[in-house]
Amino acid sequence: MNVDLAERAHNHNWKLDPIVRSLLDTDFYKLLMLQFIWKNFSGVHVTSETTNRTASVRLAEHIPIPALIEQMEHVRRLRFRKSELIWLAGNTFYGTRSIFEPAFLDWLEHDFRLSEYEVAERDGQLVLHFAGLWTEVTMWEIYGLALLSEMKSRVALGKLSELELDILYARAKTRLWDKIEKLRQVPEVRISEFGTRRRHSFLWQEYAVMAMRAGIGQSLSGTSNTYFAYKHDLEAMGTNAHELPMALAALSNSEEELHQSQYRVLELWQKSYGGELLILLPDTFGTTQFLQGAPDWVADWTGQRCDSKDPFVAGDEYIAWLMSRGRDARRKRLIASDGLDVDEILALQEYFKGRIRFSAGWGTLLTNDFRDCHPRGEHDLEPISLVCKIVSVEGRPAVKLSDNAHKATGPVEEIERYRRIFGTSPVLGAEVLV
Amino acid sequence: MNVDLAERAHNHNWKLDPIVRSLLDTDFYKLLMLQFIWKNFSGVHVTSETTNRTASVRLAEHIPIPALIEQMEHVRRLRFRKSELIWLAGNTFYGTRSIFEPAFLDWLEHDFRLSEYEVAERDGQLVLHFAGLWTEVTMWEIYGLALLSEMKSRVALGKLSELELDILYARAKTRLWDKIEKLRQVPEVRISEFGTRRRHSFLWQEYAVMAMRAGIGQSLSGTSNTYFAYKHDLEAMGTNAHELPMALAALSNSEEELHQSQYRVLELWQKSYGGELLILLPDTFGTTQFLQGAPDWVADWTGQRCDSKDPFVAGDEYIAWLMSRGRDARRKRLIASDGLDVDEILALQEYFKGRIRFSAGWGTLLTNDFRDCHPRGEHDLEPISLVCKIVSVEGRPAVKLSDNAHKATGPVEEIERYRRIFGTSPVLGAEVLV
Repeated sequence: MNVDLAERAHNHNWKLDPIVRSLLDTDFYKLLMLQFIWKNFSGVHVTSETTNRTASVRLAEHIPIPALIEQMEHVRRLRFRKSELIWLAGNTFYGTRSIFEPAFLDWLEHDFRLSEYEVAERDGQLVLHFAGLWTEVTMWEIYGLALLSEMKSRVALGKLSELELDILYARAKTRLWDKIEKLRQVPEVRISEFGTRRRHSFLWQEYAVMAMRAGIGQSLSGTSNTYFAYKHDLEAMGTNAHELPMALAALSNSEEELHQSQYRVLELWQKSYGGELLILLPDTFGTTQFLQGAPDWVADWTGQRCDSKDPFVAGDEYIAWLMSRGRDARRKRLIASDGLDVDEILALQEYFKGRIRFSAGWGTLLTNDFRDCHPRGEHDLEPISLVCKIVSVEGRPAVKLSDNAHKATGPVEEIERYRRIFGTSPVLGAEVLV
Repeated sequence: MNVDLAERAHNHNWKLDPIVRSLLDTDFYKLLMLQFIWKNFSGVHVTSETTNRTASVRLAEHIPIPALIEQMEHVRRLRFRKSELIWLAGNTFYGTRSIFEPAFLDWLEHDFRLSEYEVAERDGQLVLHFAGLWTEVTMWEIYGLALLSEMKSRVALGKLSELELDILYARAKTRLWDKIEKLRQVPEVRISEFGTRRRHSFLWQEYAVMAMRAGIGQSLSGTSNTYFAYKHDLEAMGTNAHELPMALAALSNSEEELHQSQYRVLELWQKSYGGELLILLPDTFGTTQFLQGAPDWVADWTGQRCDSKDPFVAGDEYIAWLMSRGRDARRKRLIASDGLDVDEILALQEYFKGRIRFSAGWGTLLTNDFRDCHPRGEHDLEPISLVCKIVSVEGRPAVKLSDNAHKATGPVEEIERYRRIFGTSPVLGAEVLV
């Protein structure tokens, strides 16, 4: 009856439907790492780059570069809003107040900038390349990945009629809720939402987070998405990532220093943060060598995140290592975060029950599981394995070995050198789905 | 951002969210029958009544009587709108123009009224009772059933949160689209939507009809819902129902006249309507006796609707009967309309392919299949078997025997008498689901 003439005209006036709407729309660990970098490595220059590990999906054929650049320019124009900074200053993270220093928040407000970037086409892929101060480059990771992921969704959605869109989302919601109903059967399970980088879209991620909160209540520990934590009073989750040991390794000046850099990053980290933020990520250069060579104080850290090794094996290995170091595994935390879905989460919960405090970082298959939901049976809404990794630090190549050779990054000869230094032999783990 | 203050206030001002929004929101056969009654039986008085054959669902405990009465009063205040009458006059139904006489349309515009009614509580059930001229009572059937059906839905929906409602409809849409995808595999299938009386809701029926049109295109022959046919340029489908032979039988003054009334109604009908509207509904007093005793001209009718007998058996019986009468079954139509769902529709299509022109009247399991969709696993949104049947004609009891003794209606002693006269033995068919 009542057409809202102003609204209709306004909708036609839209210049851009932004994908990233706030600088808080990033993983919380990026903010923790940003403060760490700002404090310890403020003059260091790096480059980083996106890679689509799902080579069969040729992103350059899907995503129009001008539209992508518009979105990236929009992100570069964003600033932290006053109420966002007040929330960062005043909120309690992992039970600790004032995790962010006033000087850092002041810098965020006045001096934080995102680096320059290039968009290149390479073998049918779109590559985002970032170069500049580490503090300017690091934050691109999540914004860039979320942009590519949602641009890809939008192109696929643009081919569907209104009814087909409705069916698509009905199916995805049905899938999501079926997963949530399975999780409800196990109230002791603990899950953090980790799906920002490869989400279907901002709005769908928000829907998934809200559905999880309504469906599993306290079993949802929180979300890695800082904006949703801020907007919906959730716990912001996450600690650190491979970026730090990769950069410190690249900055090393001898083989001995390189080998030790994986522990030096922990020393620096625990100077900056304490308590629940002491979560090891031991797989950068191979988990087994990391644990064997670790100084004893490493066993005092709160827990471990396993991101590339079979989590059943990684958890057993961690528990055995803790016992060998005389620590009680039942007081430690094990976080799995590598391409999980519901059945594996519940199997892990059952497997580690009473042995270690298990929790799941549930990402892409929570926020982008549109497999078999397409109304015409097409595949262009299925998730792909996009990553954004440090490529060089002060001109030196950065390397990750990982527990899964599929996930190794860096120049081939450097990977060889690192394997020799860390004594890590390449193990091909599971094919990387997401 | 922009709250539409006027809309928000308007939403709070709503006095009633009507279930029946137009007098066209009824099965098309009711309008054909109404003209037939208006022409041939304008002075006859009848009573009719609703029955919930799903006794386990105690409607009186779900539906508040005052709200039901508000809805019924709303229907009684409705009038045929000018553009609706113009459409009835100008549209082509089953390839024929001017099916409705100008005098009838004039009467519809100026003199049509719905009868008085009573709402009674009986054994936990709500019973709608209608009494008056047949022309005033007959149209209550679909309005009354649709009101009860949607009132029941609304009470169940009222217990759900916004998210739960979203999940419910996501699941129902997923279910619906999965059915449509099955139907798409068989382009030669022909389906009419027959689900008005037991629909989940007006809006959901409209959604289902629109999804069917988008999904199966020409395989959707049309809809029995006259309002949707009018609104969406679809074919209006349907011819006649048990009400006519039941009433003519009740008006009979001898056993011979009673027995012959089942054919006399056809004679009268073909005087009023021709062509595609000549669809037999032979099961009122038993299909087998009907076919055996039928005059030869009955075999000239266009087809048969089977509504209570196993449609595989009924179709075979009809084809054999046509052959015995020297007619070519491949030029006749067989319409099944009794509690169908997709798998049975496709099995029937395959079974009768090349033997008779099969089509399905798909009702409740198209417009109200919310089984296993409830977000808390409850059952109060599942369809029930509601009917509204003629109880008496000029004070004499009305009887239906049906091919399924579960569906027989009328006083026990009258059913016995009818069984004797028609030589029909009671056969218990399938349990009535919808």
